[in-house]
Amino acid sequence: MAAAAAPPPPPSAAAITLPGSIPSGHTLFTRIRLATNEDVPHIHKLIHQMAVFEHLTHLFSATIDSLSETLFPPHPPPPFTSFTVFLLELSPSPFPPAQNNPHFTPLLKSFNLDLPVEDPEKESFRSSAVDVIFNDVTVGGFVLFFPNYSSFLAKPGFYIEDIFVRECYRRNGLGKMLLSAVAAQAAKMGYGRVEWVVLDWNINAITFYEQMGAQVLPEWRICRLTGEILQAYAHVNL
Amino acid sequence: MAAAAAPPPPPSAAAITLPGSIPSGHTLFTRIRLATNEDVPHIHKLIHQMAVFEHLTHLFSATIDSLSETLFPPHPPPPFTSFTVFLLELSPSPFPPAQNNPHFTPLLKSFNLDLPVEDPEKESFRSSAVDVIFNDVTVGGFVLFFPNYSSFLAKPGFYIEDIFVRECYRRNGLGKMLLSAVAAQAAKMGYGRVEWVVLDWNINAITFYEQMGAQVLPEWRICRLTGEILQAYAHVNL
Repeated sequence: MAAAAAPPPPPSAAAITLPGSIPSGHTLFTRIRLATNEDVPHIHKLIHQMAVFEHLTHLFSATIDSLSETLFPPHPPPPFTSFTVFLLELSPSPFPPAQNNPHFTPLLKSFNLDLPVEDPEKESFRSSAVDVIFNDVTVGGFVLFFPNYSSFLAKPGFYIEDIFVRECYRRNGLGKMLLSAVAAQAAKMGYGRVEWVVLDWNINAITFYEQMGAQVLPEWRICRLTGEILQAYAHVNL
Repeated sequence: MAAAAAPPPPPSAAAITLPGSIPSGHTLFTRIRLATNEDVPHIHKLIHQMAVFEHLTHLFSATIDSLSETLFPPHPPPPFTSFTVFLLELSPSPFPPAQNNPHFTPLLKSFNLDLPVEDPEKESFRSSAVDVIFNDVTVGGFVLFFPNYSSFLAKPGFYIEDIFVRECYRRNGLGKMLLSAVAAQAAKMGYGRVEWVVLDWNINAITFYEQMGAQVLPEWRICRLTGEILQAYAHVNL
């Protein structure tokens, strides 16, 4: 009410939300849905951007074909029982009503932004979802996860392999939305844990995860057998 | 040949294998096979022993029933596509020839030991496998693993949740055999990685894993959402 009584701000300040004011005009509509094989080219670009961010491009060898074959095989198991991808889509206008899906009803949320997002890669990340093919819908991030298992709890959980929001959309709560979507799914399925890993130098991420309620376990270290050393085990005489 | 020319050792030293000598008489026959629902009582005891060893019994809440329901559901997916357990069995006499199994042919190996193993829990860990039900076969350890996924490689892998050998059987190469069995399976399936975690204070385990060819990654930390905090996400308005 105080904001309504105040004089209208000058046009150049229209995008700034003042304390106590009604949010100004930039609404970002978002949707989280199960990814399909048609989304793989976007997923491939997102994974590569993540490798760049993590300074790990020397470990990156995924191709569109290899992702498609492993994430969306000819007879895929039901979502959540194996490798599963949630895709985050963004639009300046509302999404169509969520379709009834036996496995997952897309999540819709809108965000009021102080400033519109300038997306330099908007065209290359245009969504391929059939229900928004004529709309202005952009892919902004993803989360890739799969079941894990806690023998102490005797319960499945989810392990998040990747969670990523494109740089220009960060700091708007979208990563939180993606992580919450996985946590909500785990909770609804009666699962015991959601786990993932973080690089110890990524303080921003650690702070963010702790604010989400996660414990960061200091004592555990990852061990990895890979490459030629792993392949050699195929011929070890046990 | 030098050992054969040497005078026979005195009886009290018969169990000690001298350099270059023929191994003396204590042979331990071992088998690694896929576990079944009938093995769950043993698996439950093994997981509890592991929790004791890791000083983590406060996190242990598995029961025989909850393990059975989650590891061996009514319509289980094929081995290796979900939660999978290899069981390690030990016998003073040879195992019957391996049955043809469409998913996994049991691995057989014999070890020459310097001393026979005194197993204080031999009776409670008697194997329930039907083909050795009248033999003197003991369950000595297990490994629980399931598929994971590397998006950088665009390949599945295996994640080892647990690997455990009962205390009286350690330092005989049985842990190496269990880990090698998982690595060999991964390599045969064309998988990209085998991963697991280790507590940073468990120097013996870290040394062992490095000798097996594993890298221990210093920078990554595990994040975990669990308990009531996780359950609360079921009701979060995304």
